[in-house]
Amino acid sequence: MTDDVQHMKWWGWGVDGVGFHWQDKPGFAPFVEQAVGLDLHTAPPVDPPSFDDITVAASLASPAFVSSLASIVGADHVTTDKLDRVVHTYGKSLRDLVRVRANLIERAPDLVVYPGDEDEVQRVVDAAVAADVVIIPFGGGSNIAGSLEPRADETRVVLSLDMGRMRELIDIDEESGLARIQAGALGPDLEQQLGARGWTLGHFPDSFTHSSLGGWIATRSSGMQSDKYGDIADIVRGLHVVRPSSAGVSGLLVIRPIPSSSTGPSVREMIVGSEGRLGIITEATVVVHRIPAKRDVYGYFFPNWEAGIAAMEEIAESDATPSITRISDARETGFSLATSKERHGFDKFAAGTVLPTLMKSKGWKLDDICLSFIGYEGGEAHATRQKKLVDRIVKKHGGMGVGKGPGVLYDQKKFDTPYLRDFLLDRGAAGDVSESAMPWSKVNQLHDNVVAAAEKAFDEIGIKGWIMSHMSHSYHSGACLYFTFAFVFGKDPLGEYDVVKRAIQQAFIDNGGSLSHHHGVGLEHAPWLEQDISSQGVAVMRGLFEAVDPGANFNPRKIVADLKEPAEVN
Amino acid sequence: MTDDVQHMKWWGWGVDGVGFHWQDKPGFAPFVEQAVGLDLHTAPPVDPPSFDDITVAASLASPAFVSSLASIVGADHVTTDKLDRVVHTYGKSLRDLVRVRANLIERAPDLVVYPGDEDEVQRVVDAAVAADVVIIPFGGGSNIAGSLEPRADETRVVLSLDMGRMRELIDIDEESGLARIQAGALGPDLEQQLGARGWTLGHFPDSFTHSSLGGWIATRSSGMQSDKYGDIADIVRGLHVVRPSSAGVSGLLVIRPIPSSSTGPSVREMIVGSEGRLGIITEATVVVHRIPAKRDVYGYFFPNWEAGIAAMEEIAESDATPSITRISDARETGFSLATSKERHGFDKFAAGTVLPTLMKSKGWKLDDICLSFIGYEGGEAHATRQKKLVDRIVKKHGGMGVGKGPGVLYDQKKFDTPYLRDFLLDRGAAGDVSESAMPWSKVNQLHDNVVAAAEKAFDEIGIKGWIMSHMSHSYHSGACLYFTFAFVFGKDPLGEYDVVKRAIQQAFIDNGGSLSHHHGVGLEHAPWLEQDISSQGVAVMRGLFEAVDPGANFNPRKIVADLKEPAEVN
Repeated sequence: MTDDVQHMKWWGWGVDGVGFHWQDKPGFAPFVEQAVGLDLHTAPPVDPPSFDDITVAASLASPAFVSSLASIVGADHVTTDKLDRVVHTYGKSLRDLVRVRANLIERAPDLVVYPGDEDEVQRVVDAAVAADVVIIPFGGGSNIAGSLEPRADETRVVLSLDMGRMRELIDIDEESGLARIQAGALGPDLEQQLGARGWTLGHFPDSFTHSSLGGWIATRSSGMQSDKYGDIADIVRGLHVVRPSSAGVSGLLVIRPIPSSSTGPSVREMIVGSEGRLGIITEATVVVHRIPAKRDVYGYFFPNWEAGIAAMEEIAESDATPSITRISDARETGFSLATSKERHGFDKFAAGTVLPTLMKSKGWKLDDICLSFIGYEGGEAHATRQKKLVDRIVKKHGGMGVGKGPGVLYDQKKFDTPYLRDFLLDRGAAGDVSESAMPWSKVNQLHDNVVAAAEKAFDEIGIKGWIMSHMSHSYHSGACLYFTFAFVFGKDPLGEYDVVKRAIQQAFIDNGGSLSHHHGVGLEHAPWLEQDISSQGVAVMRGLFEAVDPGANFNPRKIVADLKEPAEVN
Repeated sequence: MTDDVQHMKWWGWGVDGVGFHWQDKPGFAPFVEQAVGLDLHTAPPVDPPSFDDITVAASLASPAFVSSLASIVGADHVTTDKLDRVVHTYGKSLRDLVRVRANLIERAPDLVVYPGDEDEVQRVVDAAVAADVVIIPFGGGSNIAGSLEPRADETRVVLSLDMGRMRELIDIDEESGLARIQAGALGPDLEQQLGARGWTLGHFPDSFTHSSLGGWIATRSSGMQSDKYGDIADIVRGLHVVRPSSAGVSGLLVIRPIPSSSTGPSVREMIVGSEGRLGIITEATVVVHRIPAKRDVYGYFFPNWEAGIAAMEEIAESDATPSITRISDARETGFSLATSKERHGFDKFAAGTVLPTLMKSKGWKLDDICLSFIGYEGGEAHATRQKKLVDRIVKKHGGMGVGKGPGVLYDQKKFDTPYLRDFLLDRGAAGDVSESAMPWSKVNQLHDNVVAAAEKAFDEIGIKGWIMSHMSHSYHSGACLYFTFAFVFGKDPLGEYDVVKRAIQQAFIDNGGSLSHHHGVGLEHAPWLEQDISSQGVAVMRGLFEAVDPGANFNPRKIVADLKEPAEVN
């Protein structure tokens, strides 16, 4: 494994030594017992899996091919090492983690290559295509849609192209607020380099610490502050994408950083979301902002979900422009209160006597209340004014502000959620997420019907399950609902997971939502693509992929299946 | 010609009886004489061309084919009538008007069909594709990029599909702020129907009165208030596109109105800008807004262009969110002052003694000052606050406000500009426009170099020409510059036009701008596409078109040439 690039642990999220702990959260164990019937006191965690137990088929890469790549990137940056191949087999979806922990590695990539610059990427791509090798680009490895794994029946050599060495901020055009950044930069790499010069990208997905700019672009990512900064499609203006070169024609696709353009179907918007199928994204020129003078996240409580959503809808339509609008449903609010630590002021407020007394005086029910976070960014006066505008709307819908305490907590914990999934897996339980965007008029209906569909699925497999949700992003015409679900595995973990996951995805589609708002399609969501964008929409996308990659060398059969094997994905 | 659809006059912009008049604008004739050497007093306009002089080749459509279409849309809604064919031959570009006035109609469509609903569109499309007919969709006919004309050497039957009967507002989802509207609705149709229910689309391109929703989408249009409402790509969420149906598979491509989505390369963003090449847009679901309580456009003067652009750039980066930011360069400011009518208060101010006195006191030069319009929309308090924020920035850059007078004038005159082109053509002179978007860091450089390139081109053809510009749209990371140029024709109108137009387009590309910001590609801009989005970008787009329309039935050879004939366009 190359020394230059740090990966997450092969069997779970994040880095060794960081994890979720419950002993300092007095409400957590009772909550989990009540929600999914798991007694944390009597369910000791399993030990981390041993890498020695993992078996991987021999690499199909010939020594000659490996050596030809070594001559491009250097011998240290091409490898058929077992650990490297396992790390690059999957992303970090629940399905991925269950499989890797159970030594279910049907098809690992045959080799991993770490290019150091765009020219090396071009030469690797050309060598791979010439040898009819499959290329799968790899950023931070945080994908949860199955976008990274080789198909089980792939008989050609599979090359995982790890972009981790290409993580530099190349340049900032300070006059235009545009930064050129290499695609392999992880969130912290990138914000650190920008921050040192007074700038921010403002893109903070849950995966921020372990996901890359190129990965965000390839999967159409959205960050927590996208109400202000936009989704990645809004943020990315310029792009470099390496495609096969041919006699006299450079393989480099260049989209220049134009703010807006009227040059036919948007090739930029074809690259965004392409999950490697159109080529290898090597750099992007992105819209950046000066770090705002003021940045605050405030907490609010609403008497119930409907009131909270009505407020969010009115905020989206109003003149107010908060940077974050987020509200948890009653179940997720209960979860948040349960995961609070004792010592924090806010938690005393919430878990102690203050909140119950307050609610009684308002006639609120503890089982109905919803916790909301709303962020304000910009100049001092702007942030203050936005809060004033929002506070008025919150009040109109019966909500109340509870200050910055919860917002500070939210800010501190916002990137920790993925660790909870490993905590549950260690104890034989599933925890996963799925999200959808929909018009405002469908938000309540979709929310209730997804919860009902999940509960029906839990009943079907005969387990006690849990599902909760928050509205994570809002737009003028709609919002994104983000669902988290959990259950204790029975005898067939992946079979049970499929029943629940499928019920949720189908309910998204049936209730006017997209199959995915910011996690991409990969293999996991591909079965619903036709229901989302219609057969003709899929035909257009398929036509694009087949025309542009006739040899099916670029992450084939992701998003849509090849014509030859439609049954496999659809 | 069907009675249900009104067209612009066949030889020019707009409707009979409306035109540009100079006698009530005392500064205009001297201005024109000085700018392009045309003496309006001694250059009497030519009479409108006579339709009898126009010759069109016989229609290639067989009676059987015409009759098969009549059985779909009704006999009144399919025609091979000469006037109908001529109206549908071209858009309204300068090249189009020169040609049609000179009876240069190389290839008219063979028939025109007016479908009444989506089902009829599907049946027409299927019949046309089965008969290997070329289909060119037609909205308001205002296109200026050559997107509407059949290629001269097209040997197949060409069908112009006029969407003018499909212009209904189908539905408003008031909770989500989304309206379903048929693609053939012209600007006024659409705003009238929305306005009656208290809503607005907020999309006001110069062509507003004679362009359609479907045309805006097909060419990636932008309106004057897009700073607030977004470009058409931002506005359009849902789409219906009719493509050929096949056994068991509907031809209707449906993109549902999702606010944001992560479902692979954006098919929505492939349709936007596709100029008919991917199918026929029949309806769209668009983001609409409640008509704001307040809507004002204020005028400002800046001492010079650089100061004005610096202010616009700072506004774009600030917390302020005006609905319009627009500034004319010194030349266009001179033109605006010259086209003012005597009687208006503002014009007295500008053309009388007030402005000169004021400028003297500030040390400004009349030849340098730049007129700017900035719009504020929303609630009363919001609009007031935005103006306050903007006024502070204007002042910092040495500008000064001159009240609402010029804004009212601007609002009244904003859709009249195209009539000026006919006025000039009637007098043997060219007037045309071309626009580009670029990062802020390139705005001044591009502006100056485009002016220089145009002047060099004027010299080259040995004429006295004129070019002026305004910044028409701004974004966080850049802006759009909109250039207007004019000259008196010599012996070879289109040859001379080509020299100037090419010089301007090439200067866009050479100075970091897009080849087009909101007019599309068509035939007119196709030669620069490769320089704009790179060979690989064009290869991706070409791959898409060829895969999705293998028979080349949908407006072929627009945007990019077919593989078979790359030389023709590129």
